[in-house]
Amino acid sequence: MFVVPLIERKRDGGALTPEQWSALIAAYTDGRVPDYQMSALLMAVVLRGLERQELAALTDAMLASGQRLGFDSWPTPRVDKHSTGGVGDKVSLVLAPLVAACGVAVPMMSGRGLGHTGGTLDKLEAIPGFRTGLSLAEAKAQVMKLGVAMMGQTPEIAPADRRLYALRDVTGTVEAIPLIAASIMSKKLAEGLNALVLDVKRGSGAFLPSLEQSLELARTMITLGEDRGCPTVALLTAMDRPLGRACGNALETEEAILTLRGEGPADLLEVTYALGSEMLLAAGVEKTSKKARQRLANALASGLAAEKFEQLIEAQGGNPKTVEDPSVLPQAQEVEVYAAPRTGVVAADHRPRGRGDGRRSHQGRRRGRPHGGVRDHGEAGRQGAGRRTDRVDLCARPGRNEARLRGARAGDRDRRQAGGKAAPVDLTPGDEGRRGGAQAIGGFCTPGPQSCTLSSSGASCTSRSACSSSV
Amino acid sequence: MFVVPLIERKRDGGALTPEQWSALIAAYTDGRVPDYQMSALLMAVVLRGLERQELAALTDAMLASGQRLGFDSWPTPRVDKHSTGGVGDKVSLVLAPLVAACGVAVPMMSGRGLGHTGGTLDKLEAIPGFRTGLSLAEAKAQVMKLGVAMMGQTPEIAPADRRLYALRDVTGTVEAIPLIAASIMSKKLAEGLNALVLDVKRGSGAFLPSLEQSLELARTMITLGEDRGCPTVALLTAMDRPLGRACGNALETEEAILTLRGEGPADLLEVTYALGSEMLLAAGVEKTSKKARQRLANALASGLAAEKFEQLIEAQGGNPKTVEDPSVLPQAQEVEVYAAPRTGVVAADHRPRGRGDGRRSHQGRRRGRPHGGVRDHGEAGRQGAGRRTDRVDLCARPGRNEARLRGARAGDRDRRQAGGKAAPVDLTPGDEGRRGGAQAIGGFCTPGPQSCTLSSSGASCTSRSACSSSV
Repeated sequence: MFVVPLIERKRDGGALTPEQWSALIAAYTDGRVPDYQMSALLMAVVLRGLERQELAALTDAMLASGQRLGFDSWPTPRVDKHSTGGVGDKVSLVLAPLVAACGVAVPMMSGRGLGHTGGTLDKLEAIPGFRTGLSLAEAKAQVMKLGVAMMGQTPEIAPADRRLYALRDVTGTVEAIPLIAASIMSKKLAEGLNALVLDVKRGSGAFLPSLEQSLELARTMITLGEDRGCPTVALLTAMDRPLGRACGNALETEEAILTLRGEGPADLLEVTYALGSEMLLAAGVEKTSKKARQRLANALASGLAAEKFEQLIEAQGGNPKTVEDPSVLPQAQEVEVYAAPRTGVVAADHRPRGRGDGRRSHQGRRRGRPHGGVRDHGEAGRQGAGRRTDRVDLCARPGRNEARLRGARAGDRDRRQAGGKAAPVDLTPGDEGRRGGAQAIGGFCTPGPQSCTLSSSGASCTSRSACSSSV
Repeated sequence: MFVVPLIERKRDGGALTPEQWSALIAAYTDGRVPDYQMSALLMAVVLRGLERQELAALTDAMLASGQRLGFDSWPTPRVDKHSTGGVGDKVSLVLAPLVAACGVAVPMMSGRGLGHTGGTLDKLEAIPGFRTGLSLAEAKAQVMKLGVAMMGQTPEIAPADRRLYALRDVTGTVEAIPLIAASIMSKKLAEGLNALVLDVKRGSGAFLPSLEQSLELARTMITLGEDRGCPTVALLTAMDRPLGRACGNALETEEAILTLRGEGPADLLEVTYALGSEMLLAAGVEKTSKKARQRLANALASGLAAEKFEQLIEAQGGNPKTVEDPSVLPQAQEVEVYAAPRTGVVAADHRPRGRGDGRRSHQGRRRGRPHGGVRDHGEAGRQGAGRRTDRVDLCARPGRNEARLRGARAGDRDRRQAGGKAAPVDLTPGDEGRRGGAQAIGGFCTPGPQSCTLSSSGASCTSRSACSSSV
């Protein structure tokens, strides 16, 4: 494989042919192209971009590198959700069993943390015994039996993406829209779906903090999905604060369970309903958003959704009692309580905290530890205008107390926001590493959760009044 | 070593601190930073550039990764020449013994072919027995005894550059001015020089074909040298045609020997004198260009230069009879003679010929084979206006006849040059791989050899009348 001319062409702003992308990805997957050539090419892609045909060819090549989930003539519609990830985003854990309880199958393949955001697999694995490493055959059988499976990317699915994803993570080539889109879509298209709903996070805690980037990513994925026979809808949801109140793997799993039991925070429920109703509509089991929401609410209220999660946990080797009693989840041995110095909101922050980079090699990624996290106890009922937070619990890792409060330091965010009067309190949850990270900012209110729906036929905003940006 | 944030900073257009460059290069040299991270960073450098302080820090770090030639209080001035490389550039083989014969020591460290241009080491190794792999101690002793050594980069000199150079070659990150400058200067500064003369090639056959890039490279290296106590002068010389008449390792060595014996082509001699007189001036052994040229001419005419090359060959294990009888050099077993269809000049061409990339891994580079090459037998005396070429010999590798003539095909070059009336004859010397490559173009005359001198005090052109571009 003569890779240098291809790298040079991309470096100089040219485009590779579909055949070149196909041959290159196949050779990389086979180990015939070394990592050092691929990482140089990836950096050239980050800085030069990909043309539409190139992106399609790259995605197809990644998809073709592995197998696909085949449901043959099984009539149940399959829909999945993908989130671009944000601080405290535990939606998948609520949504998958909830939608499955409404009669739509969810063969959900998730990832681990990327950048500063946590991964669904890490959260699921906080459940004692839970096994995310299903084979394709196991996943298929479970989906056809229970209507839902939650698993990691199996070795059979898009192995090219698996290698590229690991390489990007250690070569500064993660934050590139075409590469993000190709990675997501190559896996999702392998799930044998009838439709796909994307949760594109926007705001300070999102993977891509700017609105323009979020929109570009959403449009890129919609095009990729539509062109490949998988109708795709994207919701743009707020990530200028953590979703819900808990950040940290076990704490988020606990919050997801509480939400399935009807005891969850309103913002998390709102995003779950927004995504879930799009999934029911895309699957064709409901015709209107209103009816879809009602169906979701019924599944929650009746306990069917929680029961589905219990069945899912049991099927995947986890302790099903976790739903009834979340205290079986790993607990922090030390809990420190900090009082915010003044009233404000907890904002999500995507910026690295200078704690260094725990990733030493793309072969040996550090996995999230389940105990640590941040939980806030804000007043309820002030959701729309910005949740007030008067204290924040910090759950540190047993035996070490890395969690620390950097009080009253003037942060960049505060300076950027002229309306902010008070100095921010910067909470650095040491145990979470790059996953999580929350910042309490005094005296500043961000708009409430909102969602904007994007599809190939246009855009609509479910809470236009609360949405400060036009889509 | 936490490399990802550094890669990300460069990717996003920021600058690394001198301390970061220093730590990074040290860690890469030790193997603590993997190739795949370095190649991503190198690509970011290619596309984002380096600030002046970054370039200085990178060069210093590469220099500091190894040892330096120390001549202590030895009074003989040391000057070296470096060429950016071009088709048929065998100047080093003439210049080093010639300048040494004039009383200036030349501790010359050269490289192998990079991109499409041949390397001095490959040419020297065409001499039976010639050993380019001297240790630092051997080189020092030989320079102090003979006044000249011609060697490869020893393992002790700039090992960081050695690794980076090999990695760049296989990752499409060769053609970047700061990286080229840092690579050259980190080695040259390790030679214990009093001054350095650079031969920056310009024109279609040069490594950097555009004048702007050639000038930028020259200025970059002059600044790096001056800032580090090594006065540096750059000559910009023509590379819109092969230098001399021979391309191919053994053929070029033969031509260099003929030149040392006073039988060389005028263009090669002109470039050699231009560089040599700058070296004598920089060393302080002559005060004017005229006197320096006269001294060089005397050393050639008296046979001292040829004798110095003989001594050099003998000292480095080669067959010293080669100077007297170049037929001991490897000979092609098949020679095909092609007649150019019409009168024209042989032009140098830097473009890849689509013969694929012989480099498979940065650990196992293919070395040039000595037999193959191209030699033209043009009329003498038409040098200034464009050498007429009526036939071209093509010396193929024994046992294979890959050399082929693609006649009368309308090439890109011809189309770009409106003045060209005839279709070009495209000679593809298969045996040379990416090294060499000559193109006979009918009916088109390029300007004659010219040299422009650049130093930190300004620029001058030795043949302004023949120079079509203002420097």
